[in-house]
Amino acid sequence: MLPVEFLSALNNILPPDRLYTDPVDCYTYAYDNSRKIFPPQAVVFPLSTSEVQAIVSLCNQYKVPLVPRGRGTGTAGGSIPEQGGVALSLERMLKIISVDIANRVLVAEPGVLNQTVQDTARPYGFFWPPDPSSAMYSSIGGNIATSAGGPHAVKYGTTRDHVLGLKAVTAAGKIIRTGCYTTKGVVGYDLTRLLIGSEGTLAVITEATLKLTALPGAVAGITAYFQDLNSCTRAIVQIMSLPQLPSALEFLDAGSLNLIRNRYPDMLPQQANAMLMIEADGSESELAATISAILNACKSDGLIQARQAENIAALWKARKALSPLLREIAPKKINEDVVVPVNTLPEFLNTLAQLSHQYQIANVNFGHAGNGNIHVNLLINPDDANEAARAAQCLDKIFDLVIRLNGTLSGEHGIGSEKRDFIAKEIDPSTLGLMKDIKSLFDPNNILNPGKLFPQG
Amino acid sequence: MLPVEFLSALNNILPPDRLYTDPVDCYTYAYDNSRKIFPPQAVVFPLSTSEVQAIVSLCNQYKVPLVPRGRGTGTAGGSIPEQGGVALSLERMLKIISVDIANRVLVAEPGVLNQTVQDTARPYGFFWPPDPSSAMYSSIGGNIATSAGGPHAVKYGTTRDHVLGLKAVTAAGKIIRTGCYTTKGVVGYDLTRLLIGSEGTLAVITEATLKLTALPGAVAGITAYFQDLNSCTRAIVQIMSLPQLPSALEFLDAGSLNLIRNRYPDMLPQQANAMLMIEADGSESELAATISAILNACKSDGLIQARQAENIAALWKARKALSPLLREIAPKKINEDVVVPVNTLPEFLNTLAQLSHQYQIANVNFGHAGNGNIHVNLLINPDDANEAARAAQCLDKIFDLVIRLNGTLSGEHGIGSEKRDFIAKEIDPSTLGLMKDIKSLFDPNNILNPGKLFPQG
Repeated sequence: MLPVEFLSALNNILPPDRLYTDPVDCYTYAYDNSRKIFPPQAVVFPLSTSEVQAIVSLCNQYKVPLVPRGRGTGTAGGSIPEQGGVALSLERMLKIISVDIANRVLVAEPGVLNQTVQDTARPYGFFWPPDPSSAMYSSIGGNIATSAGGPHAVKYGTTRDHVLGLKAVTAAGKIIRTGCYTTKGVVGYDLTRLLIGSEGTLAVITEATLKLTALPGAVAGITAYFQDLNSCTRAIVQIMSLPQLPSALEFLDAGSLNLIRNRYPDMLPQQANAMLMIEADGSESELAATISAILNACKSDGLIQARQAENIAALWKARKALSPLLREIAPKKINEDVVVPVNTLPEFLNTLAQLSHQYQIANVNFGHAGNGNIHVNLLINPDDANEAARAAQCLDKIFDLVIRLNGTLSGEHGIGSEKRDFIAKEIDPSTLGLMKDIKSLFDPNNILNPGKLFPQG
Repeated sequence: MLPVEFLSALNNILPPDRLYTDPVDCYTYAYDNSRKIFPPQAVVFPLSTSEVQAIVSLCNQYKVPLVPRGRGTGTAGGSIPEQGGVALSLERMLKIISVDIANRVLVAEPGVLNQTVQDTARPYGFFWPPDPSSAMYSSIGGNIATSAGGPHAVKYGTTRDHVLGLKAVTAAGKIIRTGCYTTKGVVGYDLTRLLIGSEGTLAVITEATLKLTALPGAVAGITAYFQDLNSCTRAIVQIMSLPQLPSALEFLDAGSLNLIRNRYPDMLPQQANAMLMIEADGSESELAATISAILNACKSDGLIQARQAENIAALWKARKALSPLLREIAPKKINEDVVVPVNTLPEFLNTLAQLSHQYQIANVNFGHAGNGNIHVNLLINPDDANEAARAAQCLDKIFDLVIRLNGTLSGEHGIGSEKRDFIAKEIDPSTLGLMKDIKSLFDPNNILNPGKLFPQG
């Protein structure tokens, strides 16, 4: 229960239509795509940096947990109010403050959707490269808080590569301005990237200066099917050895292809046990050479077919078909987001198959192979305690494998609550201790998204 | 004077050939390219992270200032031992730990020269994009400490865009490992970029995981001469509005051209009062289209001539000629490194001319126009107190102008000791306070490069 005086003060900051306290209203802000449910006791909808500052200061004064939230599309639990308190929804901070095409800069409030940024920039011939699969619905504030990436990260990088500066409110209620407006700048510590990916644990982002990129002149795609995993992973390594980076290099394993086949029996070649969807972009003139080089790099003993897709919709057809099928099995899957160095993908995926066999846990694996970022999905019956226990053991081995291969436990989903128990596998005690100290510095009362990111207990 | 027990303990860590205490030996480590001179009382040359850790811990214990140092090519005083103490030279940590072309990664110790990285990567078809003009001589540790950039930053970004992870020793003597080995990774706070550009005030970098980039297939250049400043700045804005980014877009003003003319009367067209050196790269096929688009964008009323350079050496001929001339006048110049949004370059450079006239301070301006990064050089007679005072006033106005145009006080040189008195013009008290708190967190006894980066007093 929130203190009465606290609620009364909150009422003085916000009008009734921007403060929810009815549990029914609050429930919508209890969950994200991690499918955990923790209702907040209040939800607030600030419209300005100064309102955010007033709310944060109040929560800090009363030591009430405050969980910043974009559109709740994260899969790691980063935006769930696990300890109750106040959900701070930025969804009504929707202003695009400026569009400065001459300098390739767009300044926006955090609630602006990724798609809105794209729609705003596109008529001028520009885009903002971060492309999580939620881009139509997720906000730039959330994208920044998680350093979101997507298929195009292989060529364009992730969110941290495309933000010039931020305005934010620290847990102590101070307004800070990080970075600068220009593409070069080395004045002071890089607080911009310290906040990017910090999952709302350090400060609430209230404005972002985004760096835009010119749209490519042309885009083309290749679909490639392979008889076996090894020929496919060899092709991935060969493609990534080319000087030309593909703009996307997506992988589907046999489990993914079988899911698709069960619903669409004729979509895929029968013998295919692995598939690549490859996108390349650039000027018309260079694109032809790039496509030719990639087609050549696909060649291996196990290649069934590699050919240019008729269009981009055709390229992504299998991936689009897979998405709803994955959602159908979602209650029964553990969805991971690991990264390994690209040239270890053959070893990683083969060992994954061995682990799957050893622990008798079926899995479906796909993802951004160009970055070595594989979404490993363990399929389990959650009512089968024995299977759940085997899956947990299998997952532990998978994480150990990732670390052994010099990989990382999360490429784009983040830590949130879902992976905090594993973070110490990757980050040594000294470094983790320093991160905790930084958290304490920004948020001495531990009110901002408390409990997230760090191991419990 | 260093305490006797401290020196004795230092002697136990390092053999005699890696510990200097004779003032004559130490003097070489008293200065950098800021031309200030502050001799250390000792210079140490560690060979490993554990030796760095032992040295840092000892200095921390005795509260002795410790100033990390690459090759001392910085211009902002970042590596001068202003408060005496120990200069920590990383110049003997020279190992390239691994070259992993399949993953486009090179891991190296901090003393490795930028040029050595280039020489190592080039045979495989790769390079490391940060390209300060000191690249032949400066070390990657120093490049990282200053987030160095150079002419190619307009297309490739600066150091912070090309480092995947670091190993470092904090002032408290803890070894930390930041970032990861892969191109994607969102586990924990981004300490990598917090250290990049921190000028040795937070930790000593002992290993860096560098992201390599494929060499372009072809490179071409354009030289363009203009009758007047305005036609040149219009061309800059037009070029930067093209979807194709040039790989370099360097500007020389009338003052720069006159310096060259005084020595080489026939090198430049007589009527030229501004010049652009433009480089583009890419595949052979796209390059022709890019060069054509840039030549077209150069067109303006005041264009004297824009044409493709015979080769890259010819492209940079004027810039190469300028360098020694600038060194000759160096004792009499104040060299600045400001950045403004590209489309404000016309206003910036025109106002600069007015300020030059108003304060009667001659200046020579050139730099990385594609990033809006202009090196403003105020030419003064240091023995003329009146002129020096006018120059200081003029500089103050220039910085105010930069801030008013939404620019930044340093694009690539950093703050060090030279610009710390101005940092509060750009960074507000809350944000600066947070940066100071981060400094205290990493370095509670203020031993690492003390006094740098923050305003004095």
